[in-house]
Amino acid sequence: MATVPVTLADVEAAAANLDGVVRDLPLAGAQWLERLVGGEVRLVTENLQRAGSFKIRGAYNRISRLSPQERARGVVAASAGNHAQGVAVAAQLLGVHATVFMPEGATIPKVQATLGYGADVRFHGTTIDAALTAAREFADETGAVLIHPFDHDDVIAGQGTLGLEILAKMPEVRTIVVCLGGGGLLAGVSLAVKSRRPEVRVVGVQAAAAAAYPPSLAAGHPVALESMATMADGIAVGRPGDAPFAIISERVDEIVTVSEEQLSRAVLLLLERAKLVVEPAGAAAAAAVLADPSAFEPPVAVVLSGGNVDTLVLLRIIRYGLAAAGRYLTLAVRMQDRPGSLAGLLNDIQELHANVVDIEHNRVDAGLRVDEVDIVVHVETRGPEHCEALLASLTARGYQVLPGRFEPLPG
Amino acid sequence: MATVPVTLADVEAAAANLDGVVRDLPLAGAQWLERLVGGEVRLVTENLQRAGSFKIRGAYNRISRLSPQERARGVVAASAGNHAQGVAVAAQLLGVHATVFMPEGATIPKVQATLGYGADVRFHGTTIDAALTAAREFADETGAVLIHPFDHDDVIAGQGTLGLEILAKMPEVRTIVVCLGGGGLLAGVSLAVKSRRPEVRVVGVQAAAAAAYPPSLAAGHPVALESMATMADGIAVGRPGDAPFAIISERVDEIVTVSEEQLSRAVLLLLERAKLVVEPAGAAAAAAVLADPSAFEPPVAVVLSGGNVDTLVLLRIIRYGLAAAGRYLTLAVRMQDRPGSLAGLLNDIQELHANVVDIEHNRVDAGLRVDEVDIVVHVETRGPEHCEALLASLTARGYQVLPGRFEPLPG
Repeated sequence: MATVPVTLADVEAAAANLDGVVRDLPLAGAQWLERLVGGEVRLVTENLQRAGSFKIRGAYNRISRLSPQERARGVVAASAGNHAQGVAVAAQLLGVHATVFMPEGATIPKVQATLGYGADVRFHGTTIDAALTAAREFADETGAVLIHPFDHDDVIAGQGTLGLEILAKMPEVRTIVVCLGGGGLLAGVSLAVKSRRPEVRVVGVQAAAAAAYPPSLAAGHPVALESMATMADGIAVGRPGDAPFAIISERVDEIVTVSEEQLSRAVLLLLERAKLVVEPAGAAAAAAVLADPSAFEPPVAVVLSGGNVDTLVLLRIIRYGLAAAGRYLTLAVRMQDRPGSLAGLLNDIQELHANVVDIEHNRVDAGLRVDEVDIVVHVETRGPEHCEALLASLTARGYQVLPGRFEPLPG
Repeated sequence: MATVPVTLADVEAAAANLDGVVRDLPLAGAQWLERLVGGEVRLVTENLQRAGSFKIRGAYNRISRLSPQERARGVVAASAGNHAQGVAVAAQLLGVHATVFMPEGATIPKVQATLGYGADVRFHGTTIDAALTAAREFADETGAVLIHPFDHDDVIAGQGTLGLEILAKMPEVRTIVVCLGGGGLLAGVSLAVKSRRPEVRVVGVQAAAAAAYPPSLAAGHPVALESMATMADGIAVGRPGDAPFAIISERVDEIVTVSEEQLSRAVLLLLERAKLVVEPAGAAAAAAVLADPSAFEPPVAVVLSGGNVDTLVLLRIIRYGLAAAGRYLTLAVRMQDRPGSLAGLLNDIQELHANVVDIEHNRVDAGLRVDEVDIVVHVETRGPEHCEALLASLTARGYQVLPGRFEPLPG
């Protein structure tokens, strides 16, 4: 990729380039995280950035550095998410035509947002890889410039401007936590931060179910994952980019991973406590801090990289997060199918101070006698201990409680 | 109430009082609203305020002005929502003991947040009126000072500080839109704004299902509503406060109302476009602008008054908002209960470019023959036209589509 590697000067030039283009967002407080960490924690709210994520930084810097001839041929990208919107809005601002290839089945709001920024949207295949192949072919045929989401120096330099902003707004910072997919953001931020302030610790966070960096760093070169399965689509990248990998290998202090449960709980807590909508990938850094608060020396800057989450997906993640936090319990009770059974059960649940949210009846299970019914009850609880106490009390009262059914993983 | 009415000087004194106590939040952009209004629109993000709403302003100002003797006796309030948290955090900051009466069944997260700010929480009755009666009795018995949520000059002066902030941060403002329940916030803001800048238009917004101000203004005195039924619990107040009513009668240019559908769509759009969690009451001003954008002369400041919404309630509001926006359709199809029926239906729905979100089978309806099944399908659509086209196409293809079932109103 890069013959001359990207430097701090490139990031500084990108910052000048982006001046007046990106929103200058203040860091947000997070007392609920500070109580856990035992010191100052600030949230870097790129979910409130133009087009809903940091991606406009790299996309704008990259497109603005194209020659007039290249600009005239337009740009093309493949993405079903933040990169699509970042490229679309950057191209619109620069008066360049953009074509975005998306996989079939991309969520309607993301398609409409990308169209709203004036991009031409085309559908190809059912995976992002298939869309990328189509985008490459389109570039070859039309001469449009392919804007890679992370594997390009101009993109890395653009994302790195966020690192400069963090240092300027939080000079006391000791630890910066950044989510990690292909590596564009982490490479840019670590390049900027370590060049200016080598003593500041930079930590990257991957979803455990899509963590290509740990094996790649161990091998000394990018290694492709065989499979990925994470709700954090924004960082579900199967192979590190060559250019970001080189920078991250040298500059980043540590890579940690977080589970799907930790991601969903972080999304939920950011909604509830910070009142911010953050997509699962964007919540990865917060998830890592929540999972092991003492591992992050304060003052800590936690990057919330984006907020573009499909609302229907968000609904599932919230339910999953409530279940993961032990605050939402689905239990099934097998009962005689006769008047009064349900009322008695609900009274008992209420006496145990759980709030019933929803009820289903199941009369067609293989193990059910014809005079039996499974009553599935969704309850809101105070937390895991309350869940256990509730299950134990119902059993002690003689109810036949079936093995707990948790909410399924968001698909 | 007030013998000497509250003045601009009181609001200015409250602002000095609150300096360093409330978060100094920047106004947020809202291009999606600007396209509708045809000019500048800024969001006043009090949902990101300490304790999640503007309520800390009035509560802190009120408690800070108590005598040392009064402070020693503690304060008491009745609330299941923002006022509870505002009083709790203000009392904690001032080292005053707070007791908060809540109705039984107050949501667990709100109870825990109030406890988290160090208040003593007691439960009484099932309505906020019952809790208020208990709080008054507690005040009479113990000498604790009752902190009314809106009907007190010091509370109004505290809330008015938000008006001064809007003028300082957005001197070009021509219209300020504020939600309205008891009237503390609107009275304070209109007092501050009209004293300094009488040409700025101030508009109050009530939920149509809990709108005591329009009949009260018509009558010339506060009139109590007989009933209320709104998801916007933060502004569900049955009778205007005497002190705020007097100010609002004189100073506010107009009161408008919004429907439950408009409230839910505003909550949804603020989540999706602004990436902000705003409670239904807090979204009322945005709902009014969305409902009739040309009625608000730009530049417009839209106050988002709070973000404390129970997550399970938020889930219901999002679903309702999607349905109200025509983006989520629940339809039932009566079919032969045989293999392949469902697959055929799903293929047809997919061909019409709607995404199936969930499916239920209903085999136990009074009108069903034993060989029939009602398949209830939840689909994501592009909007109302897409919903209609989908229903028409399915009917044209020979499906027996039952009358549309929309999501129920959040309870």
